[in-house]
Amino acid sequence: MTADPRLSINQATIKYADLATALRVTADAGVRSIGLWREPVNEVGLDTAVKMLADSGLRFSTHCRGGFFTLPEGPERRASLDDNRRAIDETAALAAAGAEGSTAVLVLVAGGLPEGSRDLVGARSRVHDALTELAPYAQDAGVTLAIEPLHPMFGSDRCVVSTLGQALDLAADFDPSVVGAAVDTFHIWWDPQVYEQIARAGREGRIATYQVCDWKTPLPADVLLSRHYMGDGVIDFASLTRAVVETGYDRDIEVEIFNADIWADAPETVVARTVESFATTVSPHLS
Amino acid sequence: MTADPRLSINQATIKYADLATALRVTADAGVRSIGLWREPVNEVGLDTAVKMLADSGLRFSTHCRGGFFTLPEGPERRASLDDNRRAIDETAALAAAGAEGSTAVLVLVAGGLPEGSRDLVGARSRVHDALTELAPYAQDAGVTLAIEPLHPMFGSDRCVVSTLGQALDLAADFDPSVVGAAVDTFHIWWDPQVYEQIARAGREGRIATYQVCDWKTPLPADVLLSRHYMGDGVIDFASLTRAVVETGYDRDIEVEIFNADIWADAPETVVARTVESFATTVSPHLS
Repeated sequence: MTADPRLSINQATIKYADLATALRVTADAGVRSIGLWREPVNEVGLDTAVKMLADSGLRFSTHCRGGFFTLPEGPERRASLDDNRRAIDETAALAAAGAEGSTAVLVLVAGGLPEGSRDLVGARSRVHDALTELAPYAQDAGVTLAIEPLHPMFGSDRCVVSTLGQALDLAADFDPSVVGAAVDTFHIWWDPQVYEQIARAGREGRIATYQVCDWKTPLPADVLLSRHYMGDGVIDFASLTRAVVETGYDRDIEVEIFNADIWADAPETVVARTVESFATTVSPHLS
Repeated sequence: MTADPRLSINQATIKYADLATALRVTADAGVRSIGLWREPVNEVGLDTAVKMLADSGLRFSTHCRGGFFTLPEGPERRASLDDNRRAIDETAALAAAGAEGSTAVLVLVAGGLPEGSRDLVGARSRVHDALTELAPYAQDAGVTLAIEPLHPMFGSDRCVVSTLGQALDLAADFDPSVVGAAVDTFHIWWDPQVYEQIARAGREGRIATYQVCDWKTPLPADVLLSRHYMGDGVIDFASLTRAVVETGYDRDIEVEIFNADIWADAPETVVARTVESFATTVSPHLS
């Protein structure tokens, strides 16, 4: 089966593949684009990663991930913000090394409530503070920060940004080329406002990346790993994809799946299944 | 410790107690009100349950539960709507038997996506259809139907109503004395719009019940059982309770906890812990 030209494999989908393997199996499957994670990039070092990506001929769609912005002021918060600056630098370097059509997008996961805190409003305001601090740095680097709303089941321990509307509200004070949002079906499919907020994200120029995977119950014991191939669950990819396409979004679409069973498969198998799944659930709604 | 006069024990918190035991341990703890479930009521029969409730001297705060409205037209949907009419009758009879200050509120869980369906929009519209069908019956019986938004992690398999705002939108076509919303901290604490929607629910006269319990991670393998005593998790009961009080809500406040460890304890122990937990986390914000 021919891979959709807009499909990008997010490296987390083949979590146990090192960078060389991830690039090779993605390119070998005829996929044109890849989203990378910081750990495997830093395992080989940025300079080497940049060269490997360039040699692969693949586009680069996103870098995952920055964020974790909810800590109060102090050395840990400073270290986190410094680390985000490094992530911005990595994103710029990788986007420059990817094939034509690469995008310099750094996905941000806001972070959860600090240990012992119940102050969700305060945590959210510290996310805004962090964006204010990082935006000029990202702008100079030509990088778009993509705020990713995570499903509300992660609202306390991982990400205090829970809806696309909230991500857009957070982004509103910044230039859309600098701060946008990640539209990930897994996190937002349930939202009664999802279609109006996708349309709004498009109008405001803030769809930094569109990511797809499916939702199915029962959830596994570790709910972080409850993502599935498109078509295996209940998400309406037709309606959501058309809503994104109608905004004019015309860039890569990433498949990002965290799933212990899928991770246990050979990466070649996983990429082949991803290509098929994308072709039947997403591709028909792209034109 | 003296129980707060507004505390109501939802029977699900002591799931394995039969009706007689639930009424006895609640009253013995000095609690003034109870919310009942249909199964233990029907185990003894409605007439007997009515008499037992009257004899207990307790107020009746809610009946749990009706709903499951998302099936397409057919015999199963008809059976479900008939069952909701019986639940309305039960609610009216129990509320009339409870002590002064009892409320005739039937909590509704909307239901999930029908097997094999991905049509969330359609499922939601069938919830509205069911309310339209049941509202006159509820009105005649003097019962308020309380739409309960459930946490979005239940959005596909249990309840397609995921936010308080969505519940209020669904309720908008009906008289507030007939269709309201259940405000349950566990389900809505994460919502970026929670305070504005609580205020709206108050303005629109639609807070049919206020229920409390806590959220904590990691979630257990069965996420349905991830509810905790108030204070054991991350929910800000001070802010949420004050928001509810500011709307003028002055009725009972239920504690409804699904938790396998808590269910394994003796019901007397659970009620005592609930009384304490309520006194420290909710009572200070009620005046």
